[in-house]
Amino acid sequence: MTLDLTIRGTLVLPEGPLERAWLGVRDGTIVAIGTGSPPVATESFDAGDDLIIPGVIDGQTHATSYGGLAGIRSTTRSAIAGGVTTIADMPYDNPAPLNAIARLDDKVAAIREHAHSNVALYGTIMPGQATGDIESLIDGGVVAFKISTFESSPTRFPRIASDQILATFNALAETVIPLGVHNEDQEIVRAYIAAAKAAGRDGIEAHSESRPPAAELAATAQFLELGAAAGAHAHIVHLTTARGFQLVDNYLADGFRATGELCVHYLWFDPDKDGAALGAKMKVNPPIRPGQIDALWEEILSGRVAFVSSDHSSWPIDNKFTPSIFEAGAGVPGLETLLPAFYTAAGNRGLDAATITVEQLCERPAKFFGLWPEKGAIRIGADADLAILSRAPQIWNSAKAHDELNWSPFDGREFSVRVAHTYLGGKLAWDGAAVTNQPGSGQYVRRGASHWFE
Amino acid sequence: MTLDLTIRGTLVLPEGPLERAWLGVRDGTIVAIGTGSPPVATESFDAGDDLIIPGVIDGQTHATSYGGLAGIRSTTRSAIAGGVTTIADMPYDNPAPLNAIARLDDKVAAIREHAHSNVALYGTIMPGQATGDIESLIDGGVVAFKISTFESSPTRFPRIASDQILATFNALAETVIPLGVHNEDQEIVRAYIAAAKAAGRDGIEAHSESRPPAAELAATAQFLELGAAAGAHAHIVHLTTARGFQLVDNYLADGFRATGELCVHYLWFDPDKDGAALGAKMKVNPPIRPGQIDALWEEILSGRVAFVSSDHSSWPIDNKFTPSIFEAGAGVPGLETLLPAFYTAAGNRGLDAATITVEQLCERPAKFFGLWPEKGAIRIGADADLAILSRAPQIWNSAKAHDELNWSPFDGREFSVRVAHTYLGGKLAWDGAAVTNQPGSGQYVRRGASHWFE
Amino acid sequence: MTLDLTIRGTLVLPEGPLERAWLGVRDGTIVAIGTGSPPVATESFDAGDDLIIPGVIDGQTHATSYGGLAGIRSTTRSAIAGGVTTIADMPYDNPAPLNAIARLDDKVAAIREHAHSNVALYGTIMPGQATGDIESLIDGGVVAFKISTFESSPTRFPRIASDQILATFNALAETVIPLGVHNEDQEIVRAYIAAAKAAGRDGIEAHSESRPPAAELAATAQFLELGAAAGAHAHIVHLTTARGFQLVDNYLADGFRATGELCVHYLWFDPDKDGAALGAKMKVNPPIRPGQIDALWEEILSGRVAFVSSDHSSWPIDNKFTPSIFEAGAGVPGLETLLPAFYTAAGNRGLDAATITVEQLCERPAKFFGLWPEKGAIRIGADADLAILSRAPQIWNSAKAHDELNWSPFDGREFSVRVAHTYLGGKLAWDGAAVTNQPGSGQYVRRGASHWFE
Amino acid sequence: MTLDLTIRGTLVLPEGPLERAWLGVRDGTIVAIGTGSPPVATESFDAGDDLIIPGVIDGQTHATSYGGLAGIRSTTRSAIAGGVTTIADMPYDNPAPLNAIARLDDKVAAIREHAHSNVALYGTIMPGQATGDIESLIDGGVVAFKISTFESSPTRFPRIASDQILATFNALAETVIPLGVHNEDQEIVRAYIAAAKAAGRDGIEAHSESRPPAAELAATAQFLELGAAAGAHAHIVHLTTARGFQLVDNYLADGFRATGELCVHYLWFDPDKDGAALGAKMKVNPPIRPGQIDALWEEILSGRVAFVSSDHSSWPIDNKFTPSIFEAGAGVPGLETLLPAFYTAAGNRGLDAATITVEQLCERPAKFFGLWPEKGAIRIGADADLAILSRAPQIWNSAKAHDELNWSPFDGREFSVRVAHTYLGGKLAWDGAAVTNQPGSGQYVRRGASHWFE
Repeated sequence: MTLDLTIRGTLVLPEGPLERAWLGVRDGTIVAIGTGSPPVATESFDAGDDLIIPGVIDGQTHATSYGGLAGIRSTTRSAIAGGVTTIADMPYDNPAPLNAIARLDDKVAAIREHAHSNVALYGTIMPGQATGDIESLIDGGVVAFKISTFESSPTRFPRIASDQILATFNALAETVIPLGVHNEDQEIVRAYIAAAKAAGRDGIEAHSESRPPAAELAATAQFLELGAAAGAHAHIVHLTTARGFQLVDNYLADGFRATGELCVHYLWFDPDKDGAALGAKMKVNPPIRPGQIDALWEEILSGRVAFVSSDHSSWPIDNKFTPSIFEAGAGVPGLETLLPAFYTAAGNRGLDAATITVEQLCERPAKFFGLWPEKGAIRIGADADLAILSRAPQIWNSAKAHDELNWSPFDGREFSVRVAHTYLGGKLAWDGAAVTNQPGSGQYVRRGASHWFE
Repeated sequence: MTLDLTIRGTLVLPEGPLERAWLGVRDGTIVAIGTGSPPVATESFDAGDDLIIPGVIDGQTHATSYGGLAGIRSTTRSAIAGGVTTIADMPYDNPAPLNAIARLDDKVAAIREHAHSNVALYGTIMPGQATGDIESLIDGGVVAFKISTFESSPTRFPRIASDQILATFNALAETVIPLGVHNEDQEIVRAYIAAAKAAGRDGIEAHSESRPPAAELAATAQFLELGAAAGAHAHIVHLTTARGFQLVDNYLADGFRATGELCVHYLWFDPDKDGAALGAKMKVNPPIRPGQIDALWEEILSGRVAFVSSDHSSWPIDNKFTPSIFEAGAGVPGLETLLPAFYTAAGNRGLDAATITVEQLCERPAKFFGLWPEKGAIRIGADADLAILSRAPQIWNSAKAHDELNWSPFDGREFSVRVAHTYLGGKLAWDGAAVTNQPGSGQYVRRGASHWFE
Repeated sequence: MTLDLTIRGTLVLPEGPLERAWLGVRDGTIVAIGTGSPPVATESFDAGDDLIIPGVIDGQTHATSYGGLAGIRSTTRSAIAGGVTTIADMPYDNPAPLNAIARLDDKVAAIREHAHSNVALYGTIMPGQATGDIESLIDGGVVAFKISTFESSPTRFPRIASDQILATFNALAETVIPLGVHNEDQEIVRAYIAAAKAAGRDGIEAHSESRPPAAELAATAQFLELGAAAGAHAHIVHLTTARGFQLVDNYLADGFRATGELCVHYLWFDPDKDGAALGAKMKVNPPIRPGQIDALWEEILSGRVAFVSSDHSSWPIDNKFTPSIFEAGAGVPGLETLLPAFYTAAGNRGLDAATITVEQLCERPAKFFGLWPEKGAIRIGADADLAILSRAPQIWNSAKAHDELNWSPFDGREFSVRVAHTYLGGKLAWDGAAVTNQPGSGQYVRRGASHWFE
Repeated sequence: MTLDLTIRGTLVLPEGPLERAWLGVRDGTIVAIGTGSPPVATESFDAGDDLIIPGVIDGQTHATSYGGLAGIRSTTRSAIAGGVTTIADMPYDNPAPLNAIARLDDKVAAIREHAHSNVALYGTIMPGQATGDIESLIDGGVVAFKISTFESSPTRFPRIASDQILATFNALAETVIPLGVHNEDQEIVRAYIAAAKAAGRDGIEAHSESRPPAAELAATAQFLELGAAAGAHAHIVHLTTARGFQLVDNYLADGFRATGELCVHYLWFDPDKDGAALGAKMKVNPPIRPGQIDALWEEILSGRVAFVSSDHSSWPIDNKFTPSIFEAGAGVPGLETLLPAFYTAAGNRGLDAATITVEQLCERPAKFFGLWPEKGAIRIGADADLAILSRAPQIWNSAKAHDELNWSPFDGREFSVRVAHTYLGGKLAWDGAAVTNQPGSGQYVRRGASHWFE
């Protein structure tokens, strides 16, 4: 039985890189791994000494918050060009969030029509909504739920009150499904913004001050304790300080299920250094804080970070050109920069960039979202979702991006690698210059068994 | 120089009981301790083999929430009859709370007019109040501040929002003054009460269910983290489960200042056993929960409880006779039962009751409120505030109480000791039958140096 | 480039079993792994659903203590029949131990002449010997050194005094080479044996009593501390109680290099149950102790056991037929029982027998002796040393053994698997009925880089 | 009932110093403590602002190793002059050690004849001695047993083999009596001395090298494990490095009874600084090691040191005038320097010298040897054994010492205090210039209840 495809290069296996190696694919699945000459195959590709890694799983994407479900098309096209073969899309669709089975069905249909990459889905609940929809969404395959303690939009991204958080945790307690939270205390943030405005401060530096660590940590602590009370899995979708991860770790040590996630921009930017140049282009919530980068890398190395994601937001740049920082949209595009940016930052710190990238961007999110072992590793039996990294430096230029947004805080930054090829299910999807697969090539990915708290 | 007073009996010293011993008083201060025959003194009293302990410091009294400042008179009279020589009075005075220096002045004047026992004072802040008053109240001698995350009364006992809690912690961060919290999440409690009412449940069992542990713990976690963010001392004025003390302990282990307090009724009652008989008479907030007593004693023995208090509330019994448990007032009288109830419960568990009583009711609150070493121990140089315990069993009967309330959940319960005498500043204040000192004998006690986090 | 060999079956990879899989070998090395149909190869073998595991590395073999260097032939023949592809042979050769480079050369020559399996070598020192030989032995490739605190033979297996242990540790401190110890305090053992004899006790039960845990633990503690003082790697070659592993763990926690090993008979036999039937056939030193099996499995599961070995001794059974237990030889044959016995015991406890067997008998000893990653795992680039386990139960019968000893404490015991095939360097060496390779097929294996304390 | 004696001054109570205070004595016991004017008494003494502390309990004295039992006279006279009111005398009497009840009787008789201070006694066993004598010695009141792992004298101070150590521990396992050890591995020490001699090295620097930490620690580890195996209390009478105390602490953490002691000279001298000047005058075993002082103080502050003693040895100086350091006697006089030297060193480090001195020299040894609460603290009911310290600096001059030895490594060192008075049982025994009590005034002190492992 002949192989469909072989790819040669340096394979980044879970135990580390293997040079002058190859993998063989049949029916979209990796079925053989070896060194030396690969066996005969219908198609073969020689990547030289490029790094062949599992396709990235971006655990936090906002594909549809601006353009609605059709946003899946450009977002996943950008994903493929960035070596991201699966996104976990947030539920805050425009105009209405994914909080019921009918909306899940619509979104799955949109994936089948538009998606270049695979898509897993988060669900949510709306204020006052009963918990009955939760079970049907789980049956429908969502990988996680998410709510917010801060209202970004009353119809699309509302604040969920404590009692409803508790009710949601109770509904999830017997399952392996995490409930994630956008963790900012609304009272503190609103009071601080009002104070900043009253003081006439409206630049990027006022943004960071207006959402202090205390706002983030108080919401985090309350949410973790509610999850603990219910016995459910509480997940913080972004923590910006080491204290946040320490808090999460205390819950683990006390026997509860708790996790915390990091986004790549918290590992790259510092308002004290970059605020003047970037302004609203680096506005995200919770804000990037000064002087945290070293401490956050320590958290990664200590194993206390669940995984690293992009928090890709599909805002056009117009959204950032506002008179005051407080009116500017929060969030940045990130699917094409996630992989090279993380790899580069790890390498610049002297770490084994290939291994830690695979761990944080592939293996850990796969385990977290119940996609392991089919995704997240180059191993026999895994899906042939692959990214191939050329170790050739590049200066990032968002003009070439495939997300129809074409702006980025990373513009002008040097990355030590570029995504040379992406394969999805054993098919070439990106050749280094163009996205070569068709909309609808990506699949809706349902949650499988959990491999996280083991 | 002759002594003013000697008292013979079994002295309960910090290191344990000393039998056939005596102490000598001059100018209101303990100046000598010995065994055998006491030296010559102006006055001498032989307590036989009764236990002589330091006067109790009740860390949580509500003297004035019903009758206003005049309530100090009956409350402190009851304190004296209960061996309590100092109360830390809560700030929720009727009609308006102690949140400014003028009100502190009024209250100190009332103490000078009415008090039979010493009185230390808590301060508070009102919604929207700036932090400027905090410093003047500290200068005025308050021992602590307290706020609530649940609105019991909009004018007297309001909910304080997160941003204001944070501002208060920030104002206290450089001081040793604790900020205490009535720790219940308002959204959860209101939702649960509404659900209970909707289900037609309104008995005492519905009370406990309507304020679940999650409501208490979520508020606790949020408050502790805000205190940690500010670097201030966060104090939880009542925790009803072991998990609460574990949470506090995590903050200590992480290097923050955090403490948790217990009230004696949580060590005595269980709604599953006592609810039917006591009904609203055992309604307190947060509620007494089923099956917690053994675990809470473990917390005491492990050293994770800051101290034990009465949470004495001066509600007349009429306040409890309501059609629904949700309309009944929360709180119970407790100044005359605190000492015998705690001692009895400790003894019934086989503990060294005398030593643990002195530790939890005298020494630890004295250190906590900055009253040590003048108060809280029988030692040379300490104030001669004393309680003398006769080890003669009694059945509690609130008809004989001195609080003008004359009801109690302890009615009919057997205590293994009774308060035979109380001395305040070396003067007899309670002779076992009557309060013998005059209103105004008690003093306003200001916070001194801290001896807690050492 | 065609493969030399493919083998199909259930591959037990480091991450777990992979069914219907294959591996491909070229030049004695595993160069490809896959599922489905294997590629074309010069030779192919289909093992059905048998388990294909890495060849076992027995970390403690005594090949030559009876018959001298020629004993390598029958011992390694037995190894191959037992799925053991590498033995770490103890230094106590008869008539003189391996304590100098000339003897290492002789032994390597004997390996080249006689060995059916690969052989790694321990070295030792003799009383009064200077440390100069240690470096040359390391250059010669020994994987470890071993001494004894108890004299089993003055010329072959002497007691080494404390000062010489310290000197040896000092000589090894800058290296990764472990110093192992036969850990029994000679004064205690001799005193206890004298007492037993004086009391007329000479059965197997007197054996266990005559070498009490205190004798083993005192020698262990002293040895570990000497290793710590020098900063060297101290290894206890057999610990018979959980306390021993706790001691080792204390040294690790204090920052020192310390390890402890377990032998398979401590996991199978109990003198209280088996002593009457087995008598001297279960005499080993330190003795198997009553009631330890469960606790020792806990140590394995907690990760505190370095690895499990056979401690195979090549004594003829005559050595056990003595009037008194004290004259009987200590030690048992074990190379053909190690693998099925460990697998069976693990399975009987409900563990994942395949995975834990590979971990304890293959991966961990490979890392310990510096043989990883070439040995100890089925992975690309590893040597094609393999054992194939048929999951067909068998009753052990030592009459069929290949060790020329033909006795065993396991006789009549049921094993859940049998060794169906063994491959050495990609060549069939055991076909389930006969050893098919020639003496001299085995190689002398030198220590490589260390992968233990990482 | 009139007091016999009152003493005024600064009382160092367990909770700290109390200024302008007094204590009252009746029948040799402290019966009252106070501030202000003391009551009427038969005799009164005003110590001004001198420190009144409990009499020191020296936990390690060798009174009789040189002069036999008569040595008790000068040794205890020196003790009294040094503020030491009780010594725990080692068992290595000359010519034969205290290993049987008859010898205990003789020694008690000698105490009654000669002792100026109280004396508690250690017992020992001799090689080959059965354990039967142990019980009778315990009945006779010994406070502890001691053996050595190094032979200092075959008849008086022999090495005890491992099996006999184990037997002794077994005999003590059910009791609270500690077994102490002189902890040096004989094989290592003899080998290192031989090496030093062979290399022609025989100065004080060779002494330290000839008994390396490994010798001390290996003996310590073996001894602790034997104690653990038996479940008895193992005590190391001197540890010279922080690692030793860490070892002891590991045993405590594992649930065993283990303790380690420190001697004051390890806190004062360093061979690198003092060796040249002091030579054999600082030879003690185990040796004082370079660079340890700071680490040993850390051990004291962390609570891992059981107590600090003098290890006073009654060697005449002639014993030190030997051609080689290896022939010089080990040990130094120390009863008159223990208290001022420890106090001074603590003060020089910025510690609260009065409190830590009372803790390490009084309270802890009292609890350790079963003499608490009668001894070791100024508290009501305690024996009126007292030392009064004048905070007047002095330069030590051993010519004035009362030990008939009149040499000291401390000669010429400045102490920040001097012993102004000593009281024994309420009687003046030392007036700052002369010992004023009579031989036989001291008592034989039997072990009472244990207060150590609580």
